[in-house]
Amino acid sequence: MTQNFSAFVEPGSVALIGASDKSGSVGALTLRNLEQAGFAGPIFLVNPRHAQLNGHRVYPDIQSLPAHVDLAVVATPPDQVPGIIRDLGSAGTKAAVVLTAGFGEFGERGKALQREMVEAARSYGLRIVGPNCVGVIVPGIGLNASFAQSMPAKGEIGFVSQSGALVTVVLDWAQARDIGFSQIISLGDMADFDFADALAYLADDSSTGAIVLYMEGLLESRRFMAAAQAASRRKPVIVLKVGRHAEGAKAAHSHTGALAGSDMVYDAAFRRAGMLRVESLPELFDAIETLALTSPSSGNRLAIMTNGGGPGVIATDALITARGALADLSPATMASLDQILPKTWSHGDPIDMIGDSPPEDYAKVLEALLRDEAIDGVLVLHAPTALADPKEAARSVIGCVQAARAAGITRNVFTAWLGERLVAPARQLFNDAHIPTYETPEDAVAGFVDRWRYAQSQSLLAAAPASASASVDGKAASACIEKAIAAGRSWLDADEVSRVLQAYEIPVLRSYSVADPDAAASAAAQIGGPVALKIRSQQLTHKSDVGGVALNLRGADRVREEAVAMLARIRAVKPNAVIDGFLVQEMAYRPDAFELIVGMSIDAVFGPVVLFGQGGTAVELIADSSLELTPLTAEIARAQMARTRVWRLLQGYREKPAADIDAIANVLTAIGRLATELPAIRELDINPLLADHRGVVAIDARILIGAPTIK
Amino acid sequence: MTQNFSAFVEPGSVALIGASDKSGSVGALTLRNLEQAGFAGPIFLVNPRHAQLNGHRVYPDIQSLPAHVDLAVVATPPDQVPGIIRDLGSAGTKAAVVLTAGFGEFGERGKALQREMVEAARSYGLRIVGPNCVGVIVPGIGLNASFAQSMPAKGEIGFVSQSGALVTVVLDWAQARDIGFSQIISLGDMADFDFADALAYLADDSSTGAIVLYMEGLLESRRFMAAAQAASRRKPVIVLKVGRHAEGAKAAHSHTGALAGSDMVYDAAFRRAGMLRVESLPELFDAIETLALTSPSSGNRLAIMTNGGGPGVIATDALITARGALADLSPATMASLDQILPKTWSHGDPIDMIGDSPPEDYAKVLEALLRDEAIDGVLVLHAPTALADPKEAARSVIGCVQAARAAGITRNVFTAWLGERLVAPARQLFNDAHIPTYETPEDAVAGFVDRWRYAQSQSLLAAAPASASASVDGKAASACIEKAIAAGRSWLDADEVSRVLQAYEIPVLRSYSVADPDAAASAAAQIGGPVALKIRSQQLTHKSDVGGVALNLRGADRVREEAVAMLARIRAVKPNAVIDGFLVQEMAYRPDAFELIVGMSIDAVFGPVVLFGQGGTAVELIADSSLELTPLTAEIARAQMARTRVWRLLQGYREKPAADIDAIANVLTAIGRLATELPAIRELDINPLLADHRGVVAIDARILIGAPTIK
Repeated sequence: MTQNFSAFVEPGSVALIGASDKSGSVGALTLRNLEQAGFAGPIFLVNPRHAQLNGHRVYPDIQSLPAHVDLAVVATPPDQVPGIIRDLGSAGTKAAVVLTAGFGEFGERGKALQREMVEAARSYGLRIVGPNCVGVIVPGIGLNASFAQSMPAKGEIGFVSQSGALVTVVLDWAQARDIGFSQIISLGDMADFDFADALAYLADDSSTGAIVLYMEGLLESRRFMAAAQAASRRKPVIVLKVGRHAEGAKAAHSHTGALAGSDMVYDAAFRRAGMLRVESLPELFDAIETLALTSPSSGNRLAIMTNGGGPGVIATDALITARGALADLSPATMASLDQILPKTWSHGDPIDMIGDSPPEDYAKVLEALLRDEAIDGVLVLHAPTALADPKEAARSVIGCVQAARAAGITRNVFTAWLGERLVAPARQLFNDAHIPTYETPEDAVAGFVDRWRYAQSQSLLAAAPASASASVDGKAASACIEKAIAAGRSWLDADEVSRVLQAYEIPVLRSYSVADPDAAASAAAQIGGPVALKIRSQQLTHKSDVGGVALNLRGADRVREEAVAMLARIRAVKPNAVIDGFLVQEMAYRPDAFELIVGMSIDAVFGPVVLFGQGGTAVELIADSSLELTPLTAEIARAQMARTRVWRLLQGYREKPAADIDAIANVLTAIGRLATELPAIRELDINPLLADHRGVVAIDARILIGAPTIK
Repeated sequence: MTQNFSAFVEPGSVALIGASDKSGSVGALTLRNLEQAGFAGPIFLVNPRHAQLNGHRVYPDIQSLPAHVDLAVVATPPDQVPGIIRDLGSAGTKAAVVLTAGFGEFGERGKALQREMVEAARSYGLRIVGPNCVGVIVPGIGLNASFAQSMPAKGEIGFVSQSGALVTVVLDWAQARDIGFSQIISLGDMADFDFADALAYLADDSSTGAIVLYMEGLLESRRFMAAAQAASRRKPVIVLKVGRHAEGAKAAHSHTGALAGSDMVYDAAFRRAGMLRVESLPELFDAIETLALTSPSSGNRLAIMTNGGGPGVIATDALITARGALADLSPATMASLDQILPKTWSHGDPIDMIGDSPPEDYAKVLEALLRDEAIDGVLVLHAPTALADPKEAARSVIGCVQAARAAGITRNVFTAWLGERLVAPARQLFNDAHIPTYETPEDAVAGFVDRWRYAQSQSLLAAAPASASASVDGKAASACIEKAIAAGRSWLDADEVSRVLQAYEIPVLRSYSVADPDAAASAAAQIGGPVALKIRSQQLTHKSDVGGVALNLRGADRVREEAVAMLARIRAVKPNAVIDGFLVQEMAYRPDAFELIVGMSIDAVFGPVVLFGQGGTAVELIADSSLELTPLTAEIARAQMARTRVWRLLQGYREKPAADIDAIANVLTAIGRLATELPAIRELDINPLLADHRGVVAIDARILIGAPTIK
């Protein structure tokens, strides 16, 4: 998967095809960037309309180049690109960054050109980043193969963006903070090279300590999930996925041509891959700052130092909202602080140092806190009161942090100097010292929280299953589905549904499909106890809405009588419905059972998705459900259940015993297996699945079938 | 309530008691601020230890001052303050700002000093802001009676803060943006002057266009609610209330001495008062920027212009999450944009202008959008691509906005130039032109959203009731509560509960309290149909947990038999419980009814609070409820119900008809009345209140009584 990727990020030589001197053009900006970034190898320029540019020789075409080119950067009009890729391929070049826009966005003609370009590349084993991208930047080797406005510093963050504009935004923001990058990859339209390729490479790249993605939508998920899981196992992977709502997705669609999956499914996928999702650009900035400037940490106990009560309260609110905890200061720490601070200090966390603390107190207090083993991180807050010099206080903190780092203390220190004009020099000092600094208490707390959220996501990732276990009795189920498809049906009938569920050991009620009221009566006699009677018809999917369900019928005669009445009722309201007969079903007398819904559907991007939630007839209104990708383990199924509100009820309360959670988990994992083994099942709903302390039983279920889509 | 407040904000003369030249001291900083702010009237200095300071004469004491003093600023040690206030009072001064810290925070001695200070002030009708505050600033008259680090510009925002540190933070932040204030009031410990006073004054103050509060907790609510409602009717009132969690409230407590009410009740109170609550400091900053620089607007349709797709998607996500809408561009606007933009523009909202738009296109596109009546506001986004000059694009936008303002177009334009270093000059241009500009798309969208959230809160405020209506039959209820209190009981018994609820026309089941199994049998015979039998005991509040509830008993004999069995059961598990007898209750056969909970409790700050939510035995686990302050109208009760999840179910679904919403609203308003008229009721719970299409009925209810607290 990572074949030839090293040519993008460690090329020995670079050629710019479409080099230009036209002010403000992509060709001229890229030329400037390539020249100024300090790349050690040769840079060749190609443009038939120039002989020289900026004192460099310009070659008329690729054939004329005097030496082998590892990486080509293409900035020509779209029409020329397929030919250029062919020339590059036959000259042995293995990597091209195509900056050119105007393929996917320009209708059929553009799409045809793009196909031609990709086919040419594949026939030579050449990989393409782009088209319609800002380029690739590798600060460590002085490579700036982009038309971005500036060159970032060297650092440990690999940034991969589906939006070129976001590359320019993040670059400019990071530069002001002296935050560096190992690689910046603008993916553009992803005609060839995509998120999966970038993740696979950056996971292996030893210069990359953390990966940050800006994503608008994926077109395929298998390679992506595999690469994302592998990357997350080795380093933090943060993603800002936009297009959360249909409107946003549409806006994304219109400019990337991506066919995005449902946003809730992305959530499930990122969780499964052990990635951390952030919800906004400010959160992405905070995450980058934090990953760039802090060490891994798995604890949630924060000590907050402040020279004003208000900021301390604000930070505490944010910390508790994010499920962090205030640190419990040890007696030794308390004694130290009593020595350092005036007697009116807050005597607890947050540590309110009082507004007129001299600068040296910051270092003394911080030093005491960094010695306390019960503290996982320290946040230093400062309000620009006239009583304290923001810059001197910052210097005091920086001195202490540097001494602690030199002494091998890895506990993270976060800072937020609040305000703007007066604190700007102090913020700059923190940036220069590579100490994370934020504009508000909330942002700083988010930085602290990101670190242990990442540690948590890693432990979940360890629980992910390798692959699905072997089938139980897939063959019988498969046969009955094939028969139904052959008969041109889209829904399985009740008997078939029972057979499929039973094949996967999902408990169902005893039931019989019968043709008429008399047959219903004999089926009832065979079951013995009270039965439910339901109409069978392909046209009536919500049977209870039309009076097609009768419950708790006792005795053959009562069943016959009700069957006759039911037929009359339904013929009155739905005279055109084709009636196939009746279903006679054992009654589930579980008055105290919970009504759940479990099911499966196929997401356009991520494939089979398993649903769990509160069931019953008001399922859409209750809106209490969670999704998981397949395959599921019992542990994943439990975590899925635990994300719903009904989970707390299932634990039992008052006189009500807990439901059999293992039995529910078995149903969910079975549905996951079934989704993989029976691809002709397009949708499955069990609603309700009754669950109590004795176990579970499926009462009503629907299965939609169809020819599986090849992805 | 606003008596003598004008002396704080429009004094003719000012005296600084405790003026000093000690570098960095409060007395010296305040002297510098008073001198430099350009106050037109005389400034007198008092300090027995100096004869002159900065070339001004210094008086030894208040008696020696040569003229009347309207406003005194006190910066002496705490011991001297009560005497100073007495001297000021007897000299006829009516207003003092006490900057001195060290009262409430210093134990009993400090509290005694504070009481002495307040008593002295009250005896002379002198009002005090503080103690322990940063001071009062009125830019419009050049008054800076504070030790804040700088002087803000004049503007229309009145900022009132319970934290001095937050005053310094907001000041510094605002100065960098050229955002001005009409008044800045640091409340400090609120020994006398509090939020209610500040709101009452700022509501009337014509120089104040919007009010912004930073709050940690209130000690009383009546005056606050009256002042907040009156202020909100006239201008936007935004509040950042911190201490949302117990931990945060504790941190707030430790530094302000405020005894804060429950945070959920603050939510209800702010809503009732028509105030807008923001949840974080970044949101507060955004709200200030928006209120300072935009016009009122009630529509939610935003047009988004961008030079990069990604930022447009991010803004769209934020807009839809906040329930805004993308504008539907009119055919005329579409035609204009087709003329201006390259053919690959997005052809819809967000308007993706494509990365290399020349600066003049910004003005042309914006002008077209500002002409479109179907657009309520425009957001202009810019990513710093090398293809566009951020400053020139900003100039183009500014020119267009200024022309539009001159032409009387009030539609708001919001800007976000993304990045940092490269866009800083553009952001400064927007600040100088008083056009709101934000750091991220999300912040800018929040600005747009604030404007129509305010318009919405105003319409809710119009629905607030003037006062409670007359009682129904309070006397009978009152008498039975008095009797129970006299008997030393804390809980009403079932008969008494029924009597109280019936007095307020809350439907209850027919029920009889009886002493023994035989009496239970005759009561059942009298009711006729099936009955419920419940144990009566002061010690057993959760009866069903101990087998003290039997349902659906038919016939006198069955009831007698069950009563005997129940006694035996309970004596086995709770041998020490005193059994008062049984309650025999009509069975409510409403199998399809919703189980609701309604109730009332007394909040420490805001008084009676009415609860509505999903009921049943798992009520704590379901956690689906909402709160309202009294009094309630039917309209407020509906809005209260609509904030819960169960509300959607109550509208009916499938075969289930809607519940009788009016009947539930009647119960809620009745509970609101009862809370006012029967102050001896400390808590009331009806759970479940059954509700279906035929109406409501209270099945089980508990009432806790006690002597009312005087507030």
